[in-house]
Amino acid sequence: MVAVPNIKLSSGYDMPQVGLGLWKVENEIAPNVVYDAIKAGYRLFDGACDYGNEVECGQGVARAIKEGIVKREELFIVSKLWNTFHDAERVEPIVRKQLADWGVDYFDLYLIHFPIALEYVDPSVRYPPSWFYDGEKEIRPSKATIQSTWQAMEALVPAGLARSIGVSNFQAQLLYDVLRYAKIRPATLQVEHHPYLVQQELLNLCKAEGIAVTAYSSFGPASFQEFNMEHATKLTPLMETEAIKSIAAKHGKATSQVLLRWATQRGLAIIPKSTRVDYLEANLAVTDFDLTDDEIAQISSLNKGIRFNQPSNYFPTELLWIFG
Amino acid sequence: MVAVPNIKLSSGYDMPQVGLGLWKVENEIAPNVVYDAIKAGYRLFDGACDYGNEVECGQGVARAIKEGIVKREELFIVSKLWNTFHDAERVEPIVRKQLADWGVDYFDLYLIHFPIALEYVDPSVRYPPSWFYDGEKEIRPSKATIQSTWQAMEALVPAGLARSIGVSNFQAQLLYDVLRYAKIRPATLQVEHHPYLVQQELLNLCKAEGIAVTAYSSFGPASFQEFNMEHATKLTPLMETEAIKSIAAKHGKATSQVLLRWATQRGLAIIPKSTRVDYLEANLAVTDFDLTDDEIAQISSLNKGIRFNQPSNYFPTELLWIFG
Repeated sequence: MVAVPNIKLSSGYDMPQVGLGLWKVENEIAPNVVYDAIKAGYRLFDGACDYGNEVECGQGVARAIKEGIVKREELFIVSKLWNTFHDAERVEPIVRKQLADWGVDYFDLYLIHFPIALEYVDPSVRYPPSWFYDGEKEIRPSKATIQSTWQAMEALVPAGLARSIGVSNFQAQLLYDVLRYAKIRPATLQVEHHPYLVQQELLNLCKAEGIAVTAYSSFGPASFQEFNMEHATKLTPLMETEAIKSIAAKHGKATSQVLLRWATQRGLAIIPKSTRVDYLEANLAVTDFDLTDDEIAQISSLNKGIRFNQPSNYFPTELLWIFG
Repeated sequence: MVAVPNIKLSSGYDMPQVGLGLWKVENEIAPNVVYDAIKAGYRLFDGACDYGNEVECGQGVARAIKEGIVKREELFIVSKLWNTFHDAERVEPIVRKQLADWGVDYFDLYLIHFPIALEYVDPSVRYPPSWFYDGEKEIRPSKATIQSTWQAMEALVPAGLARSIGVSNFQAQLLYDVLRYAKIRPATLQVEHHPYLVQQELLNLCKAEGIAVTAYSSFGPASFQEFNMEHATKLTPLMETEAIKSIAAKHGKATSQVLLRWATQRGLAIIPKSTRVDYLEANLAVTDFDLTDDEIAQISSLNKGIRFNQPSNYFPTELLWIFG
């Protein structure tokens, strides 16, 4: 089993550099996937209210703990604040619900999922609430500022509900603004990152400001083809590009491992999703070989500045062009 | 003389769609350039503290008014808040100084120049203050939040110092945050925009939110070659691309006019700079012919997502990756 390196966060805690992303892990199999991952050596689990599977993921954790495979304090459980809970008074209650769903009493890391504030939807009405006030098509923004939400996030730390706090899907300028008023700085930024979206300038910012970066969608368009995004289906899948294939062959590794090693060698944490034990093992073994500087540069040169996880790509709305 | 269309701002005021950008207009010639432009039909002048030529530009305005060529109320004078004046208590005093420099008693539009707050530098110490606290290399951030600065901007309106207020160089997410707390919404957003940086998603946002967009650097890399930016000098100048040349030939227009018409037909205001009377006239005559939808799409397809006016492109710093 590969020993996964840690990244030291500004909060003082260590975060494993490789974890399991739980987006799109189906409820039925989530307990087993998490349990298998723990057995395979995973310690970081990246969840979210919006993934709709926190109860089931928690069942996998509980089983592994009960069987003595791992202790709670050896795990690093990440969750995220959904858009409809940005109003300051909604933050702590929903965190408590999410903790209860997981069956744990603190999160290792809790993130603002998107810099989008939507009107509150009570969990008894619909959970997870999704993007739409009515569950179908009405987008109702909330006036909660990011500052007011961040202050409510900060309160989670002394309350013992989250050890570290951070943000996800934030652009540079909003992150700089958070840094101006933060009493507790964001420990991490989680963003889409793959060779078609290299994000060098955002990484420069985070390095200079001591913010750890977690990459999601490390395999690029592969994560988005099921949404029928035209630009996702038209592009050459990253694992089929000549650059990735030839580098993988040279190292005797899978193309997926090359993509993940490219990210980890750039200093990022990664959270690839898999539900298969063989892939879980392969994805974890991506810190024990090294690409050359030339290979890293060659992969980075695939950059097209193409982003898939722009909310307005998923559904027709004029309101959510958050990556302009 | 071409009649320049107006764009109706959310403030209720009309803004001419074509104006003169004053960045890099040298002090010695600025009075004549502004005077010549007014004679050529320009009514909008886009200035800023940072351009260091507001006194001289005001001299050109004064001469034209004195000679009866134009009245103050026919002009639309734009200026901008420099980074070192973001602390709320610095906003009104510096606006009053800038108004005195121009020799006018209100701005038609006053913008936050960059979403960057730097420590105050007294105008008696150095003016314009530039990026550096010591004038050379020390970047000293201020803790002024964008919300506190925007509230000070809002106070300019009832005080009669600015008729409309807006922002420049803001990304989508920060703009959305301003919209959450704004009592007076930003009337305009001024951003870099050219066929190598089409910014469709940001324009979608502004259209949905009723924010007028002004394009700067409409000619793309041409504005930045003097800074020896590698990516500016390596690219084919827009006016030498086959697409622009052939469309210009078809319409019997200059390539520069095609670039400007592409922007105005997309609904943007433009502020091309020129110091030559023949170019001033050509740049103003860009709303009286129409490109076809196909031609507009062909030009837009030159998009490379390449930005030149990223502050960290100008000088070595780890602090100003504001467009990540």
